[in-house]
Amino acid sequence: MSARFSRLCLIGLGLIGSSIARAVREKDLAGTIVAVDASEFVRARVRELGLADEITDSPQAGVSGADGVILCVPVGANAAVGAAIGPCLKPGAIVSDVGSVKAAVVRDVAPHLPANVHLVPAHPVAGTEFSGPDAGFASLFTNRWCILTPPEGQDEVAVAKIRAFWEAIGSNVEVMTPQHHDLVLAITSHVPHLIAYNIVRTADDLETVTEGEVIKFSAGGFRDFTRIAASDPTMWRDVFLHNREAVLEMVARFSEDLAQLARMVRWGDGDGLHALFTRTRAIRKSIIASGQETAAPDFGRSGPPKS
Amino acid sequence: MSARFSRLCLIGLGLIGSSIARAVREKDLAGTIVAVDASEFVRARVRELGLADEITDSPQAGVSGADGVILCVPVGANAAVGAAIGPCLKPGAIVSDVGSVKAAVVRDVAPHLPANVHLVPAHPVAGTEFSGPDAGFASLFTNRWCILTPPEGQDEVAVAKIRAFWEAIGSNVEVMTPQHHDLVLAITSHVPHLIAYNIVRTADDLETVTEGEVIKFSAGGFRDFTRIAASDPTMWRDVFLHNREAVLEMVARFSEDLAQLARMVRWGDGDGLHALFTRTRAIRKSIIASGQETAAPDFGRSGPPKS
Repeated sequence: MSARFSRLCLIGLGLIGSSIARAVREKDLAGTIVAVDASEFVRARVRELGLADEITDSPQAGVSGADGVILCVPVGANAAVGAAIGPCLKPGAIVSDVGSVKAAVVRDVAPHLPANVHLVPAHPVAGTEFSGPDAGFASLFTNRWCILTPPEGQDEVAVAKIRAFWEAIGSNVEVMTPQHHDLVLAITSHVPHLIAYNIVRTADDLETVTEGEVIKFSAGGFRDFTRIAASDPTMWRDVFLHNREAVLEMVARFSEDLAQLARMVRWGDGDGLHALFTRTRAIRKSIIASGQETAAPDFGRSGPPKS
Repeated sequence: MSARFSRLCLIGLGLIGSSIARAVREKDLAGTIVAVDASEFVRARVRELGLADEITDSPQAGVSGADGVILCVPVGANAAVGAAIGPCLKPGAIVSDVGSVKAAVVRDVAPHLPANVHLVPAHPVAGTEFSGPDAGFASLFTNRWCILTPPEGQDEVAVAKIRAFWEAIGSNVEVMTPQHHDLVLAITSHVPHLIAYNIVRTADDLETVTEGEVIKFSAGGFRDFTRIAASDPTMWRDVFLHNREAVLEMVARFSEDLAQLARMVRWGDGDGLHALFTRTRAIRKSIIASGQETAAPDFGRSGPPKS
């Protein structure tokens, strides 16, 4: 199965879209790269950075003749983009995306696509807290997971092509249902972001502790949360609104657990706390062993360890 | 003010104690380094690593003749160590510590010290998720903050010496009351750790999502929490039990805020979410500007950015 498209249209050239463009160039995964973006500023940067062969503000023009189309817009924009491009898609084209929620993508985009077009939603589980075409880099997806959630009965050749595409980019590919994806990501990504946003806000609201102190002493742990609390506001607003049920369910579980933990602190249950903290430490080791993290102390921020 | 001690006794040679030993050697901040540790394994490693000039399991013997003593044990052990060393301290000696809570240290240690000994509690705000003498490194404290919380009216020369000591090690020094320290650290360090421990546990408890999936897809955000949820269980049990009031107050604020955020998700308040996420992003920028963090995307885990 060739991973290469003749004409690949990327809609939205932010962190993810521009990283794909760079990776596609580097690995020669498209004959022609077409970049579509509504922002004049983004189009100008894409031109200056040389990320695409053709650049347009029109999704309809962009997808014309394309055998591959990847939506890289905030998930709240998918329905409108789907409606715009539906009538202009080439028969046999494959439409994919990069959204962090998947059931909503299928719900919002599928109805707009002609029967002879194949929808293969995808979610590359990678990112940074930066946004825009300048923030992207070709190795963003290297050794990261990309989850495909093809609708039941989807054309197997189309699914195999999107798999080959992401593997060529350097990702490991996994297939699951949109519903299971949204549950897994609610706990591994969405709720962690919500909690990070929340604690940064709680800290910022404190009148007895100054913002200067919060920033100064952030190396005590708070710092780790601020990175993901700096992620793109539009993208994340849309994620929460489009994975509402799973997010609320996970927040409820988290809150119950936190209440129990606070109770252990209040009543001085040292043994209970110690047992819990020992258990969580083991999970960290598994993540490092799986290659999804570095074991360097302090992420190497303090320089290389010396003895 | 000389930063140097003639005979410096470090009690507890874990991550922090062994990092101090390494920094003291590197900067020549003591004539003799005495290491005290209750663990035979730790004493053997300290000997093999050459971290101290004298090594003993006896706090009483260790502090004899020392003009500087630094307690580097979990804060729950401070009272017992204070009681043990009190009668053996040299007149004029300075006793300090590295605990993450400060009011409890003053409460637990001060009563055991003779009137002619100076207590200058300190908290270097630095660390990694690793423990033990092998995990330490001399640059751990470089460009990090060290907070001193001397009791009111404490000998100014003793305070100045501990300040000079930490500055020589490479830290920036700040002075505040123990009560204010405990409030600031509750929000910048203690509650972030509690929340990180909690979400790792919540994720691990999910039966519909496998542990394998939690680990695989941790790059979506969860990963950032697991680092601090891998911190030393004994140290953190003691921190929570010794800063109970401030921790519970901050957890209550956090929980109220999270409930409001969940409500915004439930009722689809996209504008409210966007405004909040924009505000938290600005705080991250301040932390990077203050030099307490690197701006490298993904902490540089994905390799250097390329365009």
